[in-house]
Amino acid sequence: MSTTLNHCRALDTSDPLRAMRKHFVLPDGVIYLDGNSLGVLPASAAARVADVITKEWGQDLIRSWNSSGWFDLPQRLGDKIAPLVGAAPGEVVVTDSTSVNLYKVLSAALAIAAEDTPGKKTVVSERSNFPTDLYIAEGLCRERGYHLRLVDPEGITNALDKDAAVLMLTHVNYRTGAMHDMAALTAAAHAAGCLAVWDLAHSAGAVPVDLSGAQADFAVGCGYKYLNGGPGAPAFVWVHPQHADRFQQPLSGWWGHAAPFAFTPGYRPAPGITRYLCGTQPILSLAALECGLDVFVATKTLGGMAALRRKSLALTDLFITLVEERCADHGLGLVTPRDHAQRGSQVCLSRSEGSYAIVQALIQRGVIGDFRAGDGATHADILRFGFTPLYIGFEDVWQAVEHLKQVLETGEWQRPEFNLKHAVT
Amino acid sequence: MSTTLNHCRALDTSDPLRAMRKHFVLPDGVIYLDGNSLGVLPASAAARVADVITKEWGQDLIRSWNSSGWFDLPQRLGDKIAPLVGAAPGEVVVTDSTSVNLYKVLSAALAIAAEDTPGKKTVVSERSNFPTDLYIAEGLCRERGYHLRLVDPEGITNALDKDAAVLMLTHVNYRTGAMHDMAALTAAAHAAGCLAVWDLAHSAGAVPVDLSGAQADFAVGCGYKYLNGGPGAPAFVWVHPQHADRFQQPLSGWWGHAAPFAFTPGYRPAPGITRYLCGTQPILSLAALECGLDVFVATKTLGGMAALRRKSLALTDLFITLVEERCADHGLGLVTPRDHAQRGSQVCLSRSEGSYAIVQALIQRGVIGDFRAGDGATHADILRFGFTPLYIGFEDVWQAVEHLKQVLETGEWQRPEFNLKHAVT
Repeated sequence: MSTTLNHCRALDTSDPLRAMRKHFVLPDGVIYLDGNSLGVLPASAAARVADVITKEWGQDLIRSWNSSGWFDLPQRLGDKIAPLVGAAPGEVVVTDSTSVNLYKVLSAALAIAAEDTPGKKTVVSERSNFPTDLYIAEGLCRERGYHLRLVDPEGITNALDKDAAVLMLTHVNYRTGAMHDMAALTAAAHAAGCLAVWDLAHSAGAVPVDLSGAQADFAVGCGYKYLNGGPGAPAFVWVHPQHADRFQQPLSGWWGHAAPFAFTPGYRPAPGITRYLCGTQPILSLAALECGLDVFVATKTLGGMAALRRKSLALTDLFITLVEERCADHGLGLVTPRDHAQRGSQVCLSRSEGSYAIVQALIQRGVIGDFRAGDGATHADILRFGFTPLYIGFEDVWQAVEHLKQVLETGEWQRPEFNLKHAVT
Repeated sequence: MSTTLNHCRALDTSDPLRAMRKHFVLPDGVIYLDGNSLGVLPASAAARVADVITKEWGQDLIRSWNSSGWFDLPQRLGDKIAPLVGAAPGEVVVTDSTSVNLYKVLSAALAIAAEDTPGKKTVVSERSNFPTDLYIAEGLCRERGYHLRLVDPEGITNALDKDAAVLMLTHVNYRTGAMHDMAALTAAAHAAGCLAVWDLAHSAGAVPVDLSGAQADFAVGCGYKYLNGGPGAPAFVWVHPQHADRFQQPLSGWWGHAAPFAFTPGYRPAPGITRYLCGTQPILSLAALECGLDVFVATKTLGGMAALRRKSLALTDLFITLVEERCADHGLGLVTPRDHAQRGSQVCLSRSEGSYAIVQALIQRGVIGDFRAGDGATHADILRFGFTPLYIGFEDVWQAVEHLKQVLETGEWQRPEFNLKHAVT
């Protein structure tokens, strides 16, 4: 028997996380399936940032570095991210961008590798990793005399050979939504005498992550996707305590100094993760991110990340089922793995033609997903839909698929205005 | 004849820049002489950031990257900074922190030096440069096999010897307020076959800067001091067009890619200054910074930086005069140069004892300056007062000195609560 709208509504009614929606501003007439790119606005953020601007900045001015705790924001926010990624308090700082943080940890990883496994000269990553990760790795490899070896997902284990010094992966693939087995790959890396660096951009707040349990070596992640920190929110960085004090990262700015206000001319790195800070951080953007993180704190009594994961899988299962039941015969293929263990919190579809226009037609109808172009060879064009269990409901999934069905059945996507690639979306 | 309060009031009345005060929120009961550390709140910022949060983020969500111009903010804000520092449109981007940007430009400078002057192995800087600049340089020098040579200001020209590859200076010293002659030192550097890298943290928006006229090679600067961009506002970076395309900086993230949305696995740097971008930037903090920059745009019809400089010198001259007339016999020394050509927009005093407590007593009275500890040897403890001509008036200067006089005459600064160094201010 096919899934019905009433069934979806019943799932919303019995959803223990349904109440979390009220912590966010959701625009009228929009079903937002792009929280994997930019998360929605936490309801508390406007007032919080207004207070930072008018009181902390406007009235208290320079005194707020102490009186409003601005100096401690990287650590305070890091402590709120720690439980989402399996880290202990004091092990995470929020700072800079994901790319800059990746540069820091990959630098440190290469420094450790150079000392512990000096003959190994390869950094292994996935060919379809998020490009900025590959760009950062490419630059560092050239500088340090390493070779960046890019392989397909199924080739990763084989690539962990006698030359592999560092394995650098994004946990959940940005294009396909496929999730790696962090524990297994980290163990395989270690067995091969190789360090494991993880990018959690599409994982933190989306799927349970256990960095400590997996014995990962380094990790970075993004503040503005599933953590709902706002556009360009600062990123985070984690380093296994066994490595944190061993090397200083190259961006040796004063916020990472052991005594930043001693103003001594020589650099002395702070102990632990604090040495991964560099310069002064954007306080307004940090304040907004804290509002996003506080929603996760509020989910603790509802089961935390485990409950969010259950709902996320139920949402993506439902989406896959409804697309297959209701949009059959329209040439849509499923790119994201069906296996729960290999799925993040997004579902990607492909089609031989019209993927870009279908996404545009859906956006016009208020169903916001996004399009990722293929390479004309191994990677197909992708229609990408993110399902964030904090604020997406089961009826939303039904309605999104209903719109998709109508766009396909009516041929609406073939209208000229949806086929103009005038701007990146 | 001594200067009078009425004279100061008359100066305010005839000040053509007096009207600029209305563009800022100035707390009641506060005379804010710390704009060199954190600038005050532009009057437009709260509403502007609220709009970015509630409409651009909250309602338009991911679409705002295009529809609200988020992608172009680094360039758009850079173009507003360009005229303040003698750069052309398209030559400046706003991004990351000053420390991170210094890492980028010093990396590029060392790459150029390695190619053009391979035998030269020294980076020259000032011993009392802002420490984070020295920390960044220290790390890069170690990595690239260079020697960081720190000299006193009067030793800089002599240090430009046959081994000097890069001269890295902060234009206005953060401790003393002393300003270097950028054109002369850049010319001296070039004559010695040495590149010139300038940090404009205490210059941009405070004093006229002419990077192009001085033929400087690289520059970075701060968004949250005289530019009034808000706590931790992103910084800026400028590279002389002759160098911009020559090397890629090491933080090769996707925002600096020639085609960031092609998502190709290989890095190809964008032409010009755009390659100095790395990762996604904090939009809320950029939006606030734009409000600060727009005040400078509004000063154009009032004479721009030249008019601001005239007023800045009048303010600092007045402060020096009043301190000498009204606080004589209290052991205060002048650290900042009297020569206008060597003075930034701050005045620093020293005293054999009690500097910290005097600053605390002034803050308690609403006169906010700051204290910078000496090193017990060549550098004295400093009482630091910044004078930002956009919002500080001549009567403010009178009242600040009146408070200083009272704090000294009454011995108020000796009260125990002002002598507890419990926190950094």
